[in-house]
Amino acid sequence: MIVTITPNLALDVTYEVARLRPGETNRVEAVHARAGGKGVNVARVLRSLGREVLALGFAGGPTGDAVRADLEASGLPHDLVPSAGETRRTVTVVAGDEATMLGEPGPVLAPSEWAALEARVPEADVLVVAGSVPPGVPAEAVADLVARQTARGIPVIVDVPGEALLRAAPYAWAVKPNAEELAEATGVGDPVAGARALDALAVVVSLGEGGLLAVVGETVHRVPPPRRVTGNPTGAGDAVVAALAAGRAAGAEVSWPALLADAAALSAAPVLAPVAGEFDPAAYEEFRRENA
Amino acid sequence: MIVTITPNLALDVTYEVARLRPGETNRVEAVHARAGGKGVNVARVLRSLGREVLALGFAGGPTGDAVRADLEASGLPHDLVPSAGETRRTVTVVAGDEATMLGEPGPVLAPSEWAALEARVPEADVLVVAGSVPPGVPAEAVADLVARQTARGIPVIVDVPGEALLRAAPYAWAVKPNAEELAEATGVGDPVAGARALDALAVVVSLGEGGLLAVVGETVHRVPPPRRVTGNPTGAGDAVVAALAAGRAAGAEVSWPALLADAAALSAAPVLAPVAGEFDPAAYEEFRRENA
Repeated sequence: MIVTITPNLALDVTYEVARLRPGETNRVEAVHARAGGKGVNVARVLRSLGREVLALGFAGGPTGDAVRADLEASGLPHDLVPSAGETRRTVTVVAGDEATMLGEPGPVLAPSEWAALEARVPEADVLVVAGSVPPGVPAEAVADLVARQTARGIPVIVDVPGEALLRAAPYAWAVKPNAEELAEATGVGDPVAGARALDALAVVVSLGEGGLLAVVGETVHRVPPPRRVTGNPTGAGDAVVAALAAGRAAGAEVSWPALLADAAALSAAPVLAPVAGEFDPAAYEEFRRENA
Repeated sequence: MIVTITPNLALDVTYEVARLRPGETNRVEAVHARAGGKGVNVARVLRSLGREVLALGFAGGPTGDAVRADLEASGLPHDLVPSAGETRRTVTVVAGDEATMLGEPGPVLAPSEWAALEARVPEADVLVVAGSVPPGVPAEAVADLVARQTARGIPVIVDVPGEALLRAAPYAWAVKPNAEELAEATGVGDPVAGARALDALAVVVSLGEGGLLAVVGETVHRVPPPRRVTGNPTGAGDAVVAALAAGRAAGAEVSWPALLADAAALSAAPVLAPVAGEFDPAAYEEFRRENA
């Protein structure tokens, strides 16, 4: 089983508007909402691949209820710790090709709530910790969790931003920032130098249209995207994490070139799907064949 | 008792951002939420004036739960009909002086839900119907409700937009559009001509910085705002409705000049308060004395 932790789970809301006019009243034509956050999206991709998954996180307040209801409706296995603070929302205002995202900070978590989350991590083949870290959780808390789960024999993939990434990297099996997150966390602009600045076994960097870069020990791997695709890039990074998790769950002997080729193929598929966390299985198979 | 109906009650959410950058990811620094909609705001003002009030409307889904919780917390008497569809939200993105509003359309109401709302209207001195009309409620439904409550001996003040305003006007004691809403509903740009185009006993038009205009039978009343005030104009129209309701609740013999002077004073007070539906009682008293 692959377990994902989404420290700052969200209800991802999409507002369709004809045009976003700042400073004015805008009529929302349609509203869509679904449970989100990187770890949840990773779990969705893995389940689409037929993997056994469990999504962990927090749910509080009416928005937490909406998240639970959506996960129930979609049948994604989950185990959410009740939080006193209300679960955050993200609102993405879509007007034609323009998407404006508004991200709430999320609830301030108590140390006891964070501890309750870790207590729910079952025996797992791989643990993924992905997404932003909510207010009230110190950067070292993620590192401590990753260290303890690694000590327990569970390989951990970490995709969190900033200080939490820096601190957790030494204990992770792999970390997966995108180029911008890596530069922000390390203060180093070049992705290879930035990856080396992280004290991690393996650093996989998503470069968007530049494909994937991985620094594993002394070796630098580069994988181009399977084909120039345009569409919705949201979820491409989550698909990379899902592919890494699925590959590691198959066994400790990982062929990095094969794993990265698979991750690149999987990351391109969601770009063709309109909703984050969804992907196009036919496109994935086609991209895999092209890359083989 | 003064009863208000808010046909499309909302959770009014405010997002504080440093700057709203369309097409980008915007970090929300603070989130505020409270029950809203014109009828709810009118009830809040009336309660601040010491009046006995009851706010009626619909509540559905997790957002409906949040609305109920907020009304409970604020102690505003309410009686909300459960709706199958989820209560809408409005999101106002505040960046310095710029406020960008995003309004969800609201749930599609079933005819049985609408009927359940009207069944909850108790004996009242005045009934206020204020705010937008949700999808699924035909324009004549508001007019039918107003006609039945008027026949029951309850004077009704109507502040709804568009076709629903046109149809309800003949049965209301007074209607209160702002200049823009009046022009939109009647297709007539001039406020006096527009007011005459409505087949209503009394039409009170809020003109923003132009004060108030009322057309009552053949008489046209004009009241300037008590003083040039700048601030948050949200809620000024709701305060006018509250003043009209309080004046009418005092008895059928209404002195329109006195009533409008009071409404103008009350409408200026919320402009000085930062949150819609709140007002500054000291400012109100001062404006009343100035206008006396």
